[in-house]
Amino acid sequence: MDTDSTALNQILAAAAEVTMPVAAATPAERASWLGAAADALDAAADELVGLAVEETHLPATPRLRGELNRTTFQLRFFGRVLAEGAFLGATIDHADPDWPMGPRPDIRRAHQAIGPVLVFAASNFPFAFSVAGGDTAAALAAGCPVVLKAHPGHPRLSARTGEIARDALIAAGAPAGIFEVIHGVDAGVAALKDPRIAAAAFTGSVAGGRALFDIAAARPTPIPFYGELGSVNPVVVTPGAVWARGEQVARGFAASFLLGAGQFCTKPGLLFLPEGHGLEAVLREAVEGTPGQAMLNERIADGFAARLAELQAVPGVSVLAAPRQDGPDIAGTLLTTDAASFAQGSAVVRTECFGPASLVVTYSGQAELRKLLDDLEPGLTATVHAEESEVDEVRALLPALTRLAGRLLWNDWPTGVTVSWAQQHGGPYPATTAPTTTSVGAAAIDRFLRPVAWQGFPDVLLPPALREANPWQLPRRIDGDPA
Amino acid sequence: MDTDSTALNQILAAAAEVTMPVAAATPAERASWLGAAADALDAAADELVGLAVEETHLPATPRLRGELNRTTFQLRFFGRVLAEGAFLGATIDHADPDWPMGPRPDIRRAHQAIGPVLVFAASNFPFAFSVAGGDTAAALAAGCPVVLKAHPGHPRLSARTGEIARDALIAAGAPAGIFEVIHGVDAGVAALKDPRIAAAAFTGSVAGGRALFDIAAARPTPIPFYGELGSVNPVVVTPGAVWARGEQVARGFAASFLLGAGQFCTKPGLLFLPEGHGLEAVLREAVEGTPGQAMLNERIADGFAARLAELQAVPGVSVLAAPRQDGPDIAGTLLTTDAASFAQGSAVVRTECFGPASLVVTYSGQAELRKLLDDLEPGLTATVHAEESEVDEVRALLPALTRLAGRLLWNDWPTGVTVSWAQQHGGPYPATTAPTTTSVGAAAIDRFLRPVAWQGFPDVLLPPALREANPWQLPRRIDGDPA
Repeated sequence: MDTDSTALNQILAAAAEVTMPVAAATPAERASWLGAAADALDAAADELVGLAVEETHLPATPRLRGELNRTTFQLRFFGRVLAEGAFLGATIDHADPDWPMGPRPDIRRAHQAIGPVLVFAASNFPFAFSVAGGDTAAALAAGCPVVLKAHPGHPRLSARTGEIARDALIAAGAPAGIFEVIHGVDAGVAALKDPRIAAAAFTGSVAGGRALFDIAAARPTPIPFYGELGSVNPVVVTPGAVWARGEQVARGFAASFLLGAGQFCTKPGLLFLPEGHGLEAVLREAVEGTPGQAMLNERIADGFAARLAELQAVPGVSVLAAPRQDGPDIAGTLLTTDAASFAQGSAVVRTECFGPASLVVTYSGQAELRKLLDDLEPGLTATVHAEESEVDEVRALLPALTRLAGRLLWNDWPTGVTVSWAQQHGGPYPATTAPTTTSVGAAAIDRFLRPVAWQGFPDVLLPPALREANPWQLPRRIDGDPA
Repeated sequence: MDTDSTALNQILAAAAEVTMPVAAATPAERASWLGAAADALDAAADELVGLAVEETHLPATPRLRGELNRTTFQLRFFGRVLAEGAFLGATIDHADPDWPMGPRPDIRRAHQAIGPVLVFAASNFPFAFSVAGGDTAAALAAGCPVVLKAHPGHPRLSARTGEIARDALIAAGAPAGIFEVIHGVDAGVAALKDPRIAAAAFTGSVAGGRALFDIAAARPTPIPFYGELGSVNPVVVTPGAVWARGEQVARGFAASFLLGAGQFCTKPGLLFLPEGHGLEAVLREAVEGTPGQAMLNERIADGFAARLAELQAVPGVSVLAAPRQDGPDIAGTLLTTDAASFAQGSAVVRTECFGPASLVVTYSGQAELRKLLDDLEPGLTATVHAEESEVDEVRALLPALTRLAGRLLWNDWPTGVTVSWAQQHGGPYPATTAPTTTSVGAAAIDRFLRPVAWQGFPDVLLPPALREANPWQLPRRIDGDPA
């Protein structure tokens, strides 16, 4: 069912054709389109969740229904972002003959849609980071047509989700061509190279994402490529936290790294515990007491097994909870090592292992911990479990932690990424290829907008966002003052 | 005087060493550093302008003194941006158990410095887009140490400007290592590949900029590369404007494309006039009546001569004002062609020609004009000269014009880029390699900031921008509402 070049060309031509009408639709119109898509997906929940269960082996409840709920909330949340209007960045500088660097003309700036966006769907969130997921929602909200490259892990779900979302968008008034799903690696690469595509977004592995990033950068006309790749998501536990509530931390950690069979980009892959933590038994019990789960597909399960074998072969790494089949399912594995072995342990111990495994690293004190953190590569999140009495020690760690991640957590777990105004899902490479951006939360829309300034135009020719009377009642900055 | 690898390594090590202190300085502190650098440069104006005259052949007055004024204004303008505080993007979502997608933790987001920035200076603005120019000002304002690769066209000016700016920054309290100038292609490329550099900015040619963009993208850890490359800057004149004030438009055009010997990235390189415009004589007179100017250096003058010969050889291109030496200086050239010849004229007629030449293209009507615009590649600016009575015709052109540029002008000329809140200096490639950003104006700071979210942290550990009491009195968004 791969998309052939004729079909792809038609889809790209249609997307290009409607670029201007989609961009020119009012924010309120686009909000209504997104709301209609959300309603249609919610109405088809039984069918979609059924397909998702078949294709991904993830449980219907609470996982897939919860994820679909998250997905449709996200579409509606961008409706709020559109209604509020700050995303337009409307800024007006009136002419000023006394501007210190010389007379200033009337100049006004607002954001507009960048053009057709190619989105590569992820395997591990068949709803929330797939066809109607965050990148799609943000790009549509920005006013961009979307061409969605389906993940081969859930092709029927992708096709069906795409039909439902597309039909709902069009029924709500969006122009045909605004949204289509394509299938197949060749179609995805051809689309990425096509001059009609103005930006691309991706969630997946470092290898796959980097290959696509390289293609985007090598185009005659390079385009922004927003790739969310890999993340180790270290968790630091202080001596105070071990003392006060070590068992609770251990159980929380096991629940977090085993959630969804460890197939989350925010899975905590490293747990830094003080030497002599004494939590071995409770960690083992928590992991071994968690039922196995099917992984998304065989390729991913095979990759996990190979990665786990590599990890176990690293000198100094020993087993806390051994790899185990649970009937047809895969149960969790917990390994442990000390700081010296970890430091010598090459990339194997410090890069993402996609699946239900994690590594405990023991540290002897604040200085050693700091050194361990300084040697990590960045990612999406970094977490600290500590007591309020330890704020001075934690403060000393903050420079190392902020270098490492786009989201920091205190006494919480990185799995579970809320969709809100303040969310940040991104970070320095390899967390993302675009470290100044986020793929979740209100600011995700910014990736698909480009600013345009209008100098000296008559009011009637200005976009509504910049007209003197402010017909859309937007928050705007006027002559430097937020108004 | 090229920077050798030992010296480069020391400079990069020092920049990395002070990354945290520079980022952690308050916005007010950084504003005071920028102000001190501006004051020191203003105080050294005579010396600096003298060096600039020697090395660039540009006139001291009004050009170089005006450009230095612009440069120091820009440093102070970022002080205003820092004082206002919106650049931090401070956003607070309090915990909300009733958030529709599930209970929301307390999550807070603010921008922080991305890390050491490498800036490649331009040849054509020895102050404003060079050592202490816009990219440097924006990066320092964001809280990033800057390593400045000097342009070989003005090495002594670069070294001296660098010393004065660096010493003033440090005297004002900035840590040593915050700002250094390096020289030589090898040092620039080595710095661009160095893992201690977190982002790079460039102003210059398409060939040079693309080569550096490719290096940045090919790093093991790719970094954002903000390249401002080439731009043709088309100008459309309507029949109404020709009728009402054709002579004034013709003289304005000549003044704009000849300004600074045509060595501006916003030089209008194409003038679209209606057939039978009758402005040949006044255009010729305006160009021939403008004294020649020395170009920046011999390499650039040779490149201009070669490009001009290519242009004149294009079938259908004829001369309105012929190439001419004016003593040791180079006077302007104006060529003309019709729509059909232009359409067949390959890349030579539609890419930037750096120097005092421009091309008039005649069009037969609105449809042909629209087709000509649709076939152009994007750039920094697009300009329209029209009468208020023609707003309907101009409105029909706006989709084509907005596709083309990051800044649109009405009855004005693109040369002269004001520094203000609403400025946009950028556009789709090849105007820039990063079309969602600007290199001039308040928003230029955004290029050097990355967002970090803080989930569940005690108030005392939060950055000041995100503490509940808002100690910096920032504009913030709280639970979705701008506050």
